Amino acid sequence: MAPRRRIGEFELIARYFAPLARGFDGAGGLKSDNAFLPADPRHDLVVKTDTIVAGVHFLADERPERVGAKALRVCLSDLAAGGATPFVYQLSLALPAAWRESWITGFAKGLAADQRRYGVVLCGGDTVVTPGPLTVTITAFGKVARGKGLGRDRARAGDELWVSGTVGDGALGLLAARGQLRGITPRQGASLEERYRLPQPRSALGSRLIGIASATTDVSDGLLADAGHIAEASRLAVSVERDAVPLSAAARAAVAAEPKLWANVLGGGDDYELAIAIPPRKRAGLLKAAHAAGIEVTRIGRFVRGAGVQLTIGGRPAAVTRKGYVHF
Amino acid sequence: MAPRRRIGEFELIARYFAPLARGFDGAGGLKSDNAFLPADPRHDLVVKTDTIVAGVHFLADERPERVGAKALRVCLSDLAAGGATPFVYQLSLALPAAWRESWITGFAKGLAADQRRYGVVLCGGDTVVTPGPLTVTITAFGKVARGKGLGRDRARAGDELWVSGTVGDGALGLLAARGQLRGITPRQGASLEERYRLPQPRSALGSRLIGIASATTDVSDGLLADAGHIAEASRLAVSVERDAVPLSAAARAAVAAEPKLWANVLGGGDDYELAIAIPPRKRAGLLKAAHAAGIEVTRIGRFVRGAGVQLTIGGRPAAVTRKGYVHF
Repeated sequence: MAPRRRIGEFELIARYFAPLARGFDGAGGLKSDNAFLPADPRHDLVVKTDTIVAGVHFLADERPERVGAKALRVCLSDLAAGGATPFVYQLSLALPAAWRESWITGFAKGLAADQRRYGVVLCGGDTVVTPGPLTVTITAFGKVARGKGLGRDRARAGDELWVSGTVGDGALGLLAARGQLRGITPRQGASLEERYRLPQPRSALGSRLIGIASATTDVSDGLLADAGHIAEASRLAVSVERDAVPLSAAARAAVAAEPKLWANVLGGGDDYELAIAIPPRKRAGLLKAAHAAGIEVTRIGRFVRGAGVQLTIGGRPAAVTRKGYVHF
Repeated sequence: MAPRRRIGEFELIARYFAPLARGFDGAGGLKSDNAFLPADPRHDLVVKTDTIVAGVHFLADERPERVGAKALRVCLSDLAAGGATPFVYQLSLALPAAWRESWITGFAKGLAADQRRYGVVLCGGDTVVTPGPLTVTITAFGKVARGKGLGRDRARAGDELWVSGTVGDGALGLLAARGQLRGITPRQGASLEERYRLPQPRSALGSRLIGIASATTDVSDGLLADAGHIAEASRLAVSVERDAVPLSAAARAAVAAEPKLWANVLGGGDDYELAIAIPPRKRAGLLKAAHAAGIEVTRIGRFVRGAGVQLTIGGRPAAVTRKGYVHF
């Protein structure tokens, strides 16, 4: 059998990726070695790189449309936490030797849809072949008013901890995708699975938090771990009230059927919600920003002097058995 | 046997990578989700992403010091071609499950040495574990005077093609590393191998080409392929005189012993030299820039109306059997 004729790298870029770079002159149609980003004296550029690996960060048989979208969205989630408005990204794609053009078609289609959704444009990258699993690295660029970018390190004792949306759906969705979740309806399982497969970065909320939040992070390692990251960077302790943590109806059903799943909810990660520290006087401002963004926010804890993460259940201290997803 | 205790992601970043981010405030000590890059109205930001995979782009048993350095240098080579002066980079590291801390120590050491050499600082990134081979993605950032960045697409008919340094050492060095090169001394083999293992990006020359070069690219896919990339982007043809192509003494010996190695020299890639198009009247300017950078440049061809790449040998047209390294 003759080897299948396949397109080369330049053809692949021209056919599938150059269309994603239309509308951003600095990308040079992906024909140049480099992308050129005009700098702007009124803004800081905000940059975040994330890598996702097949079988580790997404299901190995995930639809290609969702692989591109997930890679982009996990970066956009970080930019949202930074208060930044995204505008371009670089893409590095490491393809297994057996890659097919039909896969690339779907991958590029997923990116194209998200480019429209989030107002971003591809501006460069690299494509290689790997003997390992499909690996996607995205470096996303956003803008934020000069000096106004949000980070983890400026929470103060007395600040409240809020979280956007609902927590735990991503981690439970991974279990649902593996058929390991009981006590829920198929429809609930599907809604959880969807949250795992396709994160919803809170881009509309992030940029509205400038002037309101004292510190932010996105919830990707697990709620308690990420709340702890803010606390640690701000040299504080944080306490989180479990029963205040907002759950979707599906997550509520799953946890009711199997209470030990609280560990997955609080520590499983893949939420891509925003954890937000605010002084109490900014509460009205936060609610207004959330309303404008069309995203719910819920108060779940507070920052105090000290160190570490304290979970409470009905106001009483509880042991934290699984602080969060540990990468290694 | 108890599992080896290893450090987690945050500890790894704090211990090995945060020191690489010292001196650049926008990196926030790698404790924030994002890097913040102050924009500057007098410059464009130049961005390039490259991925290298163990066993594909570098030898699987390469010393860790050189893996980090190679990943960085292949990006810096592109920035040099853009005329940009590098200043920060993002690093994404996908580690095999069996990674060891001693490996990370060497990897970070190699990066630290190159940070001093090239004046760059780590500003963020990601670290994941992969079931596949070690994979390193770097996104490097440079600055160039607003609107002055160099690319492939502005060569003109009548321009001369020049190349920096010597060509073919990288490709022959890979053969040498595999013990597949004859007719050379061990010392020559070692010098070629060194060129493959550790590219020398022409950073000192690139930024000096602004106002001189009409088009540039780095030679990473192979001299003929990359000369062809300039020609194609500029809608021209290019002819390259083989006997004008500058070879190191080691490459000259290898090619004398085995003339078919010319294909590797002209098409093998991994040179990380600069291919430079200039109008003839800029010749003195180019030689002056090269002298200031301490880098040799050699005239090897010219751009003419038409399309495609023409190789000549002693002025007579020759067949191009292997235009360059094809990625897939």
